Amino acid sequence: MRTQNGESVLARAVRIFEAFTPEEPALTVSEISRRTGLHVATASRLVAELVSYGFLTRDDHRRVRIGMRLWELATRASPSLSLRNAAMPFMEGVHDVVGHHVQLGVLDGDEVLFLERLTAPQAVINYTRIAGRLPLHASSSGLVLLAHGPAELRERVLDGPLDRYTPDTPATAARLRAVLAEARRQGYAYCPGYVHPDALGIAAPVRDARGEVVAALAVIVPNEAGGPSVVPVVRTAARGVSRALGAGGSSSLKDSSLTD
Amino acid sequence: MRTQNGESVLARAVRIFEAFTPEEPALTVSEISRRTGLHVATASRLVAELVSYGFLTRDDHRRVRIGMRLWELATRASPSLSLRNAAMPFMEGVHDVVGHHVQLGVLDGDEVLFLERLTAPQAVINYTRIAGRLPLHASSSGLVLLAHGPAELRERVLDGPLDRYTPDTPATAARLRAVLAEARRQGYAYCPGYVHPDALGIAAPVRDARGEVVAALAVIVPNEAGGPSVVPVVRTAARGVSRALGAGGSSSLKDSSLTD
Repeated sequence: MRTQNGESVLARAVRIFEAFTPEEPALTVSEISRRTGLHVATASRLVAELVSYGFLTRDDHRRVRIGMRLWELATRASPSLSLRNAAMPFMEGVHDVVGHHVQLGVLDGDEVLFLERLTAPQAVINYTRIAGRLPLHASSSGLVLLAHGPAELRERVLDGPLDRYTPDTPATAARLRAVLAEARRQGYAYCPGYVHPDALGIAAPVRDARGEVVAALAVIVPNEAGGPSVVPVVRTAARGVSRALGAGGSSSLKDSSLTD
Repeated sequence: MRTQNGESVLARAVRIFEAFTPEEPALTVSEISRRTGLHVATASRLVAELVSYGFLTRDDHRRVRIGMRLWELATRASPSLSLRNAAMPFMEGVHDVVGHHVQLGVLDGDEVLFLERLTAPQAVINYTRIAGRLPLHASSSGLVLLAHGPAELRERVLDGPLDRYTPDTPATAARLRAVLAEARRQGYAYCPGYVHPDALGIAAPVRDARGEVVAALAVIVPNEAGGPSVVPVVRTAARGVSRALGAGGSSSLKDSSLTD
């Protein structure tokens, strides 16, 4: 089912969904046409069809937005929903005690994708958002996922360009290697000022029933003296989520507790 | 871009997404073929293409699941994300104090669609789930949305069949009309045993900057004597969310506070 230029209808629909961003959640059809490179008549026809399924919707100003039905179908059977539901009670507990930001991230491609975030008013600066992404080498969640991720991924990231966000970002292969080794040895990543000078990220691994790291639970707090006191809170919560996922009966958590 | 039998490729992709449910989040291609009525070769080709976009994914057992990328695109620019983010701090507060279930629902078609739910271990029974739906006439959230929704919708629901879940479900037009009038007059819906005999739902309206009801904030607690004490907590939280959305400067909330 290819169109004349060889691109499938589904590929065009995907490009339309990708045109909507947190900064621009509402677009006119001509903006969609411009952003996707689709002819305006094509964009208009596809938008109309996607609106008919509830995958897109039109607001009062005839601008197009992402539709509820897309969210519903993407969420109700999502593999991440059970992870998120297992994590939420622990995240709420951490948020009550620590405040600021508590977040849950998973590895997706070469980035960390954030499934959930709890935020307090007046919390320290944080670039995370729900369904947002951060690079693996700079964020505490990303470093935990990278430290426990596939060796090929680690080598690829170590080989690639490592963007520097602050003077403290681990932006050389040697430094990143040391940071990852420490995260594995300590069982958490401690990241003062890696993404922003004022923010400290602390992340710990969440394991599934097979003992594999499936997510990172992190807090972002002010980059100040009290940081180390937060570490046990984050580690305990991440262990709690792991247990809720079935980890640690006799093997995974107990074994890993020697090194983690 | 229609196929031979007149159904578009997009319509077929939608049917594939709809095949995945909370009960069956992982399907083989032949199960997808059976559930959608698509020929197995067609299903296989479409699944492969959707996997290439990350809209579907294959697990270790070659079963197909909903992909992260679909969730990410559906969520990151979703109009409901800002509502949900505005509501979460208030929902967390209610959850700390009341426990059990706290949930946020919006009107979608002739049902309430739940965007968010916080749940305590050992909480009372509750049929809500995230991205799940309940009928408008039986759930406290649905009754709030129906009470403040379009008149045509209200008449359609009043005319339609009204399923009875318990002896207390408002399952006649006369009773439902009375319940809706009371929800409007009181400013909240109080629903003891409407969905399950052991559960009490209490919901209050969330208004946007224009004063329109855009969501319902609800708690589900045991259907016991202490229920009425929860009402002010729910109403206060719903007002807080409304203010966070910009409601109530001088008009919407103040006016509605006379009746609501």
